Amino acid sequence: MKIAVLGFGTVGRGVVNIIEDRVPQVQVARILELPDRCVEPRMTPNFDDIANDPEIEVVVECMGGLEPAHTFICMALTAGKSVVTSNKAVVAEYFEEFVNLANAHDAGFLIEASVGGGIPWIASIAKVRRVDEVSTFSGIMNGTTNYIIDSMAKQDLDFDIALGRAQELGYAERDPSADIDGIDVRNKTIISASVAFDVACTKDLPVTGIRTLTKRDMAMFRQKGLQVKLFGRGVQRDGSYAVAVEPVAVPRDSMEAAVPSNFNLVSLEGTTVGPLKFYGQGAGSLPTGNAMVQDVLDVAAHVQPRYDFSRGLTYDPTLLTSSYVFRTSVDAPQSAEWYATDAWLVHHLSAVDAHKLFEQVQARDPKAFMAAISRED
Amino acid sequence: MKIAVLGFGTVGRGVVNIIEDRVPQVQVARILELPDRCVEPRMTPNFDDIANDPEIEVVVECMGGLEPAHTFICMALTAGKSVVTSNKAVVAEYFEEFVNLANAHDAGFLIEASVGGGIPWIASIAKVRRVDEVSTFSGIMNGTTNYIIDSMAKQDLDFDIALGRAQELGYAERDPSADIDGIDVRNKTIISASVAFDVACTKDLPVTGIRTLTKRDMAMFRQKGLQVKLFGRGVQRDGSYAVAVEPVAVPRDSMEAAVPSNFNLVSLEGTTVGPLKFYGQGAGSLPTGNAMVQDVLDVAAHVQPRYDFSRGLTYDPTLLTSSYVFRTSVDAPQSAEWYATDAWLVHHLSAVDAHKLFEQVQARDPKAFMAAISRED
Repeated sequence: MKIAVLGFGTVGRGVVNIIEDRVPQVQVARILELPDRCVEPRMTPNFDDIANDPEIEVVVECMGGLEPAHTFICMALTAGKSVVTSNKAVVAEYFEEFVNLANAHDAGFLIEASVGGGIPWIASIAKVRRVDEVSTFSGIMNGTTNYIIDSMAKQDLDFDIALGRAQELGYAERDPSADIDGIDVRNKTIISASVAFDVACTKDLPVTGIRTLTKRDMAMFRQKGLQVKLFGRGVQRDGSYAVAVEPVAVPRDSMEAAVPSNFNLVSLEGTTVGPLKFYGQGAGSLPTGNAMVQDVLDVAAHVQPRYDFSRGLTYDPTLLTSSYVFRTSVDAPQSAEWYATDAWLVHHLSAVDAHKLFEQVQARDPKAFMAAISRED
Repeated sequence: MKIAVLGFGTVGRGVVNIIEDRVPQVQVARILELPDRCVEPRMTPNFDDIANDPEIEVVVECMGGLEPAHTFICMALTAGKSVVTSNKAVVAEYFEEFVNLANAHDAGFLIEASVGGGIPWIASIAKVRRVDEVSTFSGIMNGTTNYIIDSMAKQDLDFDIALGRAQELGYAERDPSADIDGIDVRNKTIISASVAFDVACTKDLPVTGIRTLTKRDMAMFRQKGLQVKLFGRGVQRDGSYAVAVEPVAVPRDSMEAAVPSNFNLVSLEGTTVGPLKFYGQGAGSLPTGNAMVQDVLDVAAHVQPRYDFSRGLTYDPTLLTSSYVFRTSVDAPQSAEWYATDAWLVHHLSAVDAHKLFEQVQARDPKAFMAAISRED
């Protein structure tokens, strides 16, 4: 089978290397590259060379960003080619459009690499849904922030030092906003919810990151037997669903607290299978490349998920409700109770209301921090 | 699609309930039951009624035990019917025979439920192997012993008290030997190695259980920052492989140490995907039934693993080498060093040599305990 790879950065090189080393039945026929980087005959700067080549059955998009990725994916699907992508930003933004195009042109649209890198998360959700409803999902979907938190916990580092080390190791970008402000997890949460609940997930969900997490916050939670992790999560019940991205304080002896370094751990709960958790490398050239090659092999084996987002679930933010800790010098509202020095607790807040309250607090105390408490309420 | 279910105990009822509630495209046409328990028309005590019914495409074996399960599986495969089984004892004993029959008669042989209950472990190994070599696997494959160890750790219980609670909860049998002596994990290790390494795995592997684990042993390891878990594990390298079942002392902050109650956590390492871990309910009517229904749906979708065990790997026990702690009143051999009161450590032992040494020690001190230390040597 002949495929084309769009983009020849970290992930694109991973895909090409894995296929050339290990998957003789697949041939990388074309690679889309910038004009000044086309150093071998199969490289082209012109996407039309790929879209118009009838021999190319699968387009593997690893360019990242919204445009031109969005346009190229639409062109490939319209030409009846299956698309495999690792681009969480473009999938989160245009998932429904891509699904409609794929179904209209009988093409596959495969996104395993967009969440959890090499972890077979998307395929596992799809498999669980053959038998079960997925009632909840949650987890650590961003290795950079897990690395930062894990370093802070194990080596008692300040946030900025831990972030600096993540940048040195190549886990964090020069501008780390997408990771530490929860944007990356937001995209992965939208994608996971769309697959788990078969719904075109809202893009207007509460997103809180860990930018203001301090060493003292870590110690405060440690004293309570807890550790903060950045979670994406979703729940569905009775025809409604809710999603959120927020720091969650989990028990220190939980599986989530034990996730080391830059690894991911994603969980779901199915009707009959019960809780399942999946752990692995959420990023990196080879793990992410592996997930894309697995998707290519699924196309070759005619094993393709089919989405249609026709379930008509209603977005109801009140489904996702927790107790929240606010660490801030701002005075507590009447409904709050004392949690620790400079920190108060509010019970039974929806993720949306917690996020609103946190915005009010941060307007007066930009260094404030907020986390949901798991297993309360 | 019409199927037959052999055995109507915990797992068989789970399969039938899930199919009737959630999988309308599959029909349970016959159920094999004891003569005095055939209370509805589709039940029969006579396997010939199933083997000779050309409409039945899949036989779901949940009887357990070696015979007559072995005979019925062979008859079904010979009749060209696909077989789905949760019976780890019969698969571990006759895997190669079943695979040869399945291949000769173009039938499927699916065993997801035999290891890890509802966890998609077997399918995940098979998927990883489409691209990667599996270099190692390991993990907590027995929920009963994990429940015992977790209760001992969290509630500071004696072994016998924790075992009694496991029996009250239905996690352990009246005769708990198969769980606490590692026989159940042995069967699951043989099956996992066969799938991961594509080899008819040796049945002559070292097996050590946790029958002699004490509260004091737990405290000794806790002081070293470790916690014991019962592991099945395997490794392959350079045309050879090794397998073992033994207690392993893992870091207290590891994922494995955090596995609660009667859950399972199984891990593998693939060439390009890196480490993956899978967590869930390793037993129970609905999780195990779910795994079998997933296998039935794979048959319906023509997605079937094909084993042939033709890789010709050599069994080389020296591949699996660790440091071992022996807690015993028996004097240490010359090569040992002191570990704690009444406990000594030997470096760089193969699992087979450790098991032999432990047998010698137990001949003089039947209450002795042995564990490998992870991350040493």
